[in-house]
Amino acid sequence: MTLQQRIEDDAGTLVEQVMQAVRQRIAARTLAPGAKLPSIRGFADAMQVSKSTVVEAYDRLAAEGLIRSRRGSGFYVAGHLPPLSLAEIGPRLDREVDPLWVSRQSLEAGDAMLKPGCGWLPREWMPDEAIRRALRTLARSEMVDLTDYGPPLGLSPMRQLLSRRMAEHGIEAEPRQIMLTESGSQAIDLLCRFLLEPGDTVLVDDPCYFNFHAMLRAHRARVIGVPCTPTGPDLEAFAQALTEHRPRLYITNSGLHNPTGATLSPVTAHRLLKLAEQHGLTIIEDDIFADLEPEPAPRLAAFDGLERVIHIGSFSKTLSAAVRCGFIAARPDWVEGLIDLKLATSFGGGHFSAELVHALLKDGSYRKHVEALRERLARAMSEVGPRLKKLGLEPWIEPRAGMFLWCSLPDGMDAATIARRALAENVVLAPGNAFSLSQSAKGFLRFNVAQSLDTRVFSVLERAMA
Amino acid sequence: MTLQQRIEDDAGTLVEQVMQAVRQRIAARTLAPGAKLPSIRGFADAMQVSKSTVVEAYDRLAAEGLIRSRRGSGFYVAGHLPPLSLAEIGPRLDREVDPLWVSRQSLEAGDAMLKPGCGWLPREWMPDEAIRRALRTLARSEMVDLTDYGPPLGLSPMRQLLSRRMAEHGIEAEPRQIMLTESGSQAIDLLCRFLLEPGDTVLVDDPCYFNFHAMLRAHRARVIGVPCTPTGPDLEAFAQALTEHRPRLYITNSGLHNPTGATLSPVTAHRLLKLAEQHGLTIIEDDIFADLEPEPAPRLAAFDGLERVIHIGSFSKTLSAAVRCGFIAARPDWVEGLIDLKLATSFGGGHFSAELVHALLKDGSYRKHVEALRERLARAMSEVGPRLKKLGLEPWIEPRAGMFLWCSLPDGMDAATIARRALAENVVLAPGNAFSLSQSAKGFLRFNVAQSLDTRVFSVLERAMA
Repeated sequence: MTLQQRIEDDAGTLVEQVMQAVRQRIAARTLAPGAKLPSIRGFADAMQVSKSTVVEAYDRLAAEGLIRSRRGSGFYVAGHLPPLSLAEIGPRLDREVDPLWVSRQSLEAGDAMLKPGCGWLPREWMPDEAIRRALRTLARSEMVDLTDYGPPLGLSPMRQLLSRRMAEHGIEAEPRQIMLTESGSQAIDLLCRFLLEPGDTVLVDDPCYFNFHAMLRAHRARVIGVPCTPTGPDLEAFAQALTEHRPRLYITNSGLHNPTGATLSPVTAHRLLKLAEQHGLTIIEDDIFADLEPEPAPRLAAFDGLERVIHIGSFSKTLSAAVRCGFIAARPDWVEGLIDLKLATSFGGGHFSAELVHALLKDGSYRKHVEALRERLARAMSEVGPRLKKLGLEPWIEPRAGMFLWCSLPDGMDAATIARRALAENVVLAPGNAFSLSQSAKGFLRFNVAQSLDTRVFSVLERAMA
Repeated sequence: MTLQQRIEDDAGTLVEQVMQAVRQRIAARTLAPGAKLPSIRGFADAMQVSKSTVVEAYDRLAAEGLIRSRRGSGFYVAGHLPPLSLAEIGPRLDREVDPLWVSRQSLEAGDAMLKPGCGWLPREWMPDEAIRRALRTLARSEMVDLTDYGPPLGLSPMRQLLSRRMAEHGIEAEPRQIMLTESGSQAIDLLCRFLLEPGDTVLVDDPCYFNFHAMLRAHRARVIGVPCTPTGPDLEAFAQALTEHRPRLYITNSGLHNPTGATLSPVTAHRLLKLAEQHGLTIIEDDIFADLEPEPAPRLAAFDGLERVIHIGSFSKTLSAAVRCGFIAARPDWVEGLIDLKLATSFGGGHFSAELVHALLKDGSYRKHVEALRERLARAMSEVGPRLKKLGLEPWIEPRAGMFLWCSLPDGMDAATIARRALAENVVLAPGNAFSLSQSAKGFLRFNVAQSLDTRVFSVLERAMA
């Protein structure tokens, strides 16, 4: 053996030793799949070998596929990362209270968290058993297509049923004026695409559903807020905004307003529509909470006959957010353009969800479910309201139904600070300014009464407000 | 009355006359909502008034909200502005062969129609029975949530499974780099929103999947086509387009290219990525036909390590278009922004579809199904190719797999004319120019071999070509 060979052999042995050390650590899970390997320098020091030996070892292990290199970032154990821990994807305490803050907090919260700030009902309030029954029925039915694209407008019997339901609320929409969407959000998103140019101005209520802000930002719209009153938008401010900003569009909830729980009055509806007509304004009436009303409130779409009002709805809040189905009712000439836009951007959408929702609407289980929901919500409302008042949280109005209480904090208190403190105790609140374009609602919190029945909500609130 | 006052008064009357003329045209729908008003000069001539009178009249009507001005583009009747005019809508047979023509024909076609131009597989090729079985299983499983919103990234076990599947194709994507979407289309749409500003330039293959044109139009992108070769885009034209147009994005299929069936070669992939790096180009690799390949072709995402390539996929073409689930694999820092955008525009999406697709992928039924599908497609390819040749339709290449044959017509024949004739006989064809930005494919038709097994396809074709 020459000296040269001996040196190479020794080096080989050293490289092999380093490789073996890494293998052992991986086998013992000291280095878990996905973990970063020690730095070249650090491991060279630890193993008392040269850096080039570690480089060689890591390269060979990478060639074997046991580890992977990532440019500029080092080496990682191959294989796949274990499921992300809640800590990794969990709530970020330091994220700014922006329009998406409440959504992400609520969506990312584990089951252990309490979510009085959440915008939807607790899982156990939803008709799980009825959905399972409908799934079994659909699995058996030969009439149900489980593999093909649906028609561009969406499942025909579902559109017929929606047409009849709307008629009960005084809204005349033929089935051909109704287009199904994957959700209420997708419905509004499609309409914004259809109606808005970048830079167009859109009116929203202040406060309003926070996702309107995020969505309109995605559409590059200029957003103007109009203050809310308990019977709809402040008409003087509304008229002034029309003159001053010439908005293209107004997005609102007429029925149970999110977050305030307000209900549009007939006189406000009438005046608002006259103003809209004078100024060529189009209105999107987002009616996703309609089925929580004991008696239907006035609908802009009913007054207007779908001339300039577009009516949208969904079942995500009352039936299931896992099997979603939304819809748009609009003028027939607009529906044609909307179909093209829907095809262009989502190519239809899985119509199985529409089949499932239709099955539940058809067989009466949905009707029974929402009747029970309304009663249960009314009970929760009468229970949660007084408890909040005891803490000094004063409801802005007594909503006639629904899940939301829009409450003002005692003077000088900041909702965002309280929300951050509550989050540290695993309670997700909805601070007012997430809903307010003018950021004038820092003294408000929105409560979902169905998510506020646990007494811990109030003890955490009390501490956070102290 | 002073002379000055009289002049002003007369001018006022003239302005009022012009305004009244516009109002009447709008009331009579001679000027429909969204229609462009006559030019200032044209209307001044027609009304025999000065241009400044028309300017004043238009300004006042705009202040009233009856019309709207658009910078650099003139005045429009308020109300519905068709900002995108994705297509001319008319009686179906007369509708121009535009990017959405084939989609709507295929989606609206009844079961009695033959659809060799359709972009997906026939219903009876899809795994209906396996889906029904999975539905029953999910209906029983207590582990499956049927009512709540899913986590923002989408079902965790599905993302883990996708991560492992991609690894088999050489694409390293950790589960946290994978976001589920409602479909492949929604994935691309979200990415366009994430990456593009209105007016940005996007490269596409010419020909390419026709919906890319429609979607990019919806994003107000400037689209530039790069000619296809059997091994990927023409690199010289690609390089020139990069220099000349500085595109932000390139959208392509690497595997089985739609509509040509071409497959990217490793050398083209490598050079293309070098060019992309030089020019700061981002690439969306739309891989929805991946599972139809017997052996995976080179993937840009594998070469690039998801640095500048974003990989998307779905199961709509291989499993079900009624229960859809797509995904995006991208750099971790991009995924964060994509989550926000997904929440803002669709608030998540029904995750039941992901549960169902995951169930089918997990239990092996999907693997068996696609294996059978590949064999069946190969048989159909060997059957349909020769029949088309007999009619003088020459495949541009022999694709290594998939469902598409991109065929040239005998000299001088126009595919759109043939498609219109065939439609009158209830056969939906896919004329080449629906896929071609440069409108240079009028002598081509795309055939889906799985939809072309009925002999009537060929007799109708023969008559339409006569």
